Amino acid sequence: MTAYARLTARAARIATIGEAQSMLGWDAAAMMPQGGGAARGDQFAVLAGLAHGLATAPEVADDLAEAEQTPPANPWDAANLRLLRHAHTRETAIPADLVEALARASTDCEQTWREARKQSDFAMVAPKLTTLMALVREKAANLAAALNMTAYDAMMDGFQRGVTAADVAPVFANYEAFLAHALPRAEERQAKRGEAIRPTGPFAEDRQEALCRSLSLRAGLEAEHSRLDRSTHPFCGGTPTDVRITTRYSTDDFQRALMGVLHETGHALYERGLPRDYARQPVGEACGMAAHESQSLIIEMQACRSDAFLRFLGPELHKTFQGPASPYSPDNLARLTRHIQRGFIRVDADEMTYPAHVILRFRLEQALITDDLAIADLPAAWNDGLHALLGITPPNDAQGVLQDIHWYDGLIGYFPSYSLGAMAAAQLMAAARTAEPGLDAALEQGDFSVLLGWLRRNVHSQGSLHGFNDLLRHATGKQLDPTDFQAHLTARYLTCSGTPE
Amino acid sequence: MTAYARLTARAARIATIGEAQSMLGWDAAAMMPQGGGAARGDQFAVLAGLAHGLATAPEVADDLAEAEQTPPANPWDAANLRLLRHAHTRETAIPADLVEALARASTDCEQTWREARKQSDFAMVAPKLTTLMALVREKAANLAAALNMTAYDAMMDGFQRGVTAADVAPVFANYEAFLAHALPRAEERQAKRGEAIRPTGPFAEDRQEALCRSLSLRAGLEAEHSRLDRSTHPFCGGTPTDVRITTRYSTDDFQRALMGVLHETGHALYERGLPRDYARQPVGEACGMAAHESQSLIIEMQACRSDAFLRFLGPELHKTFQGPASPYSPDNLARLTRHIQRGFIRVDADEMTYPAHVILRFRLEQALITDDLAIADLPAAWNDGLHALLGITPPNDAQGVLQDIHWYDGLIGYFPSYSLGAMAAAQLMAAARTAEPGLDAALEQGDFSVLLGWLRRNVHSQGSLHGFNDLLRHATGKQLDPTDFQAHLTARYLTCSGTPE
Repeated sequence: MTAYARLTARAARIATIGEAQSMLGWDAAAMMPQGGGAARGDQFAVLAGLAHGLATAPEVADDLAEAEQTPPANPWDAANLRLLRHAHTRETAIPADLVEALARASTDCEQTWREARKQSDFAMVAPKLTTLMALVREKAANLAAALNMTAYDAMMDGFQRGVTAADVAPVFANYEAFLAHALPRAEERQAKRGEAIRPTGPFAEDRQEALCRSLSLRAGLEAEHSRLDRSTHPFCGGTPTDVRITTRYSTDDFQRALMGVLHETGHALYERGLPRDYARQPVGEACGMAAHESQSLIIEMQACRSDAFLRFLGPELHKTFQGPASPYSPDNLARLTRHIQRGFIRVDADEMTYPAHVILRFRLEQALITDDLAIADLPAAWNDGLHALLGITPPNDAQGVLQDIHWYDGLIGYFPSYSLGAMAAAQLMAAARTAEPGLDAALEQGDFSVLLGWLRRNVHSQGSLHGFNDLLRHATGKQLDPTDFQAHLTARYLTCSGTPE
Repeated sequence: MTAYARLTARAARIATIGEAQSMLGWDAAAMMPQGGGAARGDQFAVLAGLAHGLATAPEVADDLAEAEQTPPANPWDAANLRLLRHAHTRETAIPADLVEALARASTDCEQTWREARKQSDFAMVAPKLTTLMALVREKAANLAAALNMTAYDAMMDGFQRGVTAADVAPVFANYEAFLAHALPRAEERQAKRGEAIRPTGPFAEDRQEALCRSLSLRAGLEAEHSRLDRSTHPFCGGTPTDVRITTRYSTDDFQRALMGVLHETGHALYERGLPRDYARQPVGEACGMAAHESQSLIIEMQACRSDAFLRFLGPELHKTFQGPASPYSPDNLARLTRHIQRGFIRVDADEMTYPAHVILRFRLEQALITDDLAIADLPAAWNDGLHALLGITPPNDAQGVLQDIHWYDGLIGYFPSYSLGAMAAAQLMAAARTAEPGLDAALEQGDFSVLLGWLRRNVHSQGSLHGFNDLLRHATGKQLDPTDFQAHLTARYLTCSGTPE
């Protein structure tokens, strides 16, 4: 057995433990009775410990050094070896006692955050966030030294390799300028078009579920490799051959569950399309969280909110929910599903204002990681920042700095992925439309195969062979170019005709 | 940290891996889409390998030797240390290559068995069963040498410690004699009582499910620590704080699912009642499979088929399924749920003929393990044996030697647990009735708390502190005494009054 073969065998074992963790995570969110929570926590801890032990065993360093003497000729294996080295550098950069301290501090902070958010009382969680951030900074410093990056880039690298703050900052600055100009105009146009007709519920949960499932299958998710269940916080989990997506239903509104399931379906299709020959190897994984978000958003935002698909969706909705037909006309559906609104809450934001929420967090979390912003000053900085971007000020911290779990869980560097993904989705859709002129005609028939085929060839099947920008370069001929997203928004929200796209 | 503390910490880690395996096993049976099967197999294999690695690490032998120098004074810890030694002896007795060969051969044999059973063609699976049994004999020989037992006892020890073939054989011989006398009389009495009125379906699955769930909760299973789902083969899985039971529903017949869920609820209640202070330690586990079966059968057969409970159940059934009331009278329900019939299939057997199926298998599998019965002669031996016990001969091997998965999966020594459990259930119920004179009056109100309280104190909370016979001795004042079961059957099936019990 060669050193490289030993490394890939070990990586496969670690990934298989990860699959078990992923399934248990799905179960905890979608199935587990409350009383199983404590035992589940222990199960996660033991599995994480075993995986970490395998990843950091002394022989891994020897095998890596030996394998790098004569790197594999096949570019996939060569990339895999580089990724194995990268993962090993990250795993070994952080001492075990810091890993444990971080786990304890984030559990502690997250629990307090839940209560603080309920009471809209930032001061309640501030001490625990201070403790947690000190540990996160220590982790970031360790990673930064090992990876030869800045502290923030080292954290971002954990979610989307190959993208730095220096890449992101100008893209976001550019968007901020675009938004300042575009948002008032889009609002003006929206006001002129008049209010959408609201479909009248109640929308029975089982009907919503059946429709969601059928659209998810229609989008290309295979029944024999997936499930759709319910959980408080929708997500896509499981493994590439057994993808688990979840949503929640409200009888007042079908749109949230429907668009949520289509979003998770995009994630799921990416997992399903990853290169099987490199399953359970780093090079066979999704390219990162920004890439992943591009795949959920290309389905949800680009395809499923397109004029073409809304023409298919309207009759499906009417057939499902009955009642008057007028709310389900393509034009009315467009008004319903593409409504712009300056709001306080990121997860409720429309696609035009969403990046403003991300830009705010991107700037603040860089200051947190460099310790240039005191925790006590965070709520004011949040409110000022949101006001500068969207002209609104949260009425309280629950709708401001306390709204997202990320920081209170020790996650720094994740937020940019959401908007990089949205921008990449627009860029990929533009390229797909150029390459596949029949794409929209197919969507109008509820047929995703043209889009999915293109995504499989150009994105899914590429795994982690390339970094984020190189993936885009191979698929679209250029690295991340925020103007495609702006062109998409302009076409959808700023055309004067009143007929979108 | 003492050697004993190191051992218990390791045992807890191994048990926690076991919990993850158990959850994944439940998922595979109840939730997993078919396409996830291959990956799930890998997940099981990796987790099993990790658990085995922890259990057999060289330092365990040293820690055991050191801990045994000054055994713990507390009887629970002393018993735990003995059980840790016992588990270690079993784990290390079988060389790794034999473990692997067995895993491969049983998967291979089991898959062929599925096809052979479908086609009722024993010859199709005979070569694979021959190969598998040779490996099982090798395993049994290794265990026998390590444990200083006979080969068959060493296999039985894996399912129910502390019971030997020499204990079982006279109990079964005694039952065989009882049955020869009792069965014709019970049949005669049943014929005199006339046919039961069949309730007319269809019985909607969701109504059956709601009733099953409500009766399961009524029996004492807490909603916050359990789930009820569907699977092809009903079972009880999960962990003590998160028990998962399953069943399957048929719209033609509610009895199978109902009694099945009550059976699994008995298993679940045992898991829920295990001593929490010794969770994840051998001494905190259920005492064995015979003990486990006693707990499912005391709920299903002893309590839920009792006159008292049928008086409560009848109106519940009528409320659930509507229609004419007559099928749900206590007397008619007794005829329906206590019907005796000589049949070929063990899992369909009534409580009187069931032991005959077990006795047949017990005798044959002893001959298999000593190699005194050639595989080629097994179908004839089966048919002759069943005829000797019940006077009937299977029309084909699908309804004979091919009906159960156990042997084709390499499981030898499991079958006695079913009937030892049935006998123990009768003995425990008799003792509980003596100790708690209000037990039946409570059951008549659908109140299981008197029975459950007694079981919790006398069985569940004892974990594995005692062996099977000592558990019975502590709970009932005597070791396994098959006459209680015979007295139960006599009262239920042989009283001349026509009014059972």
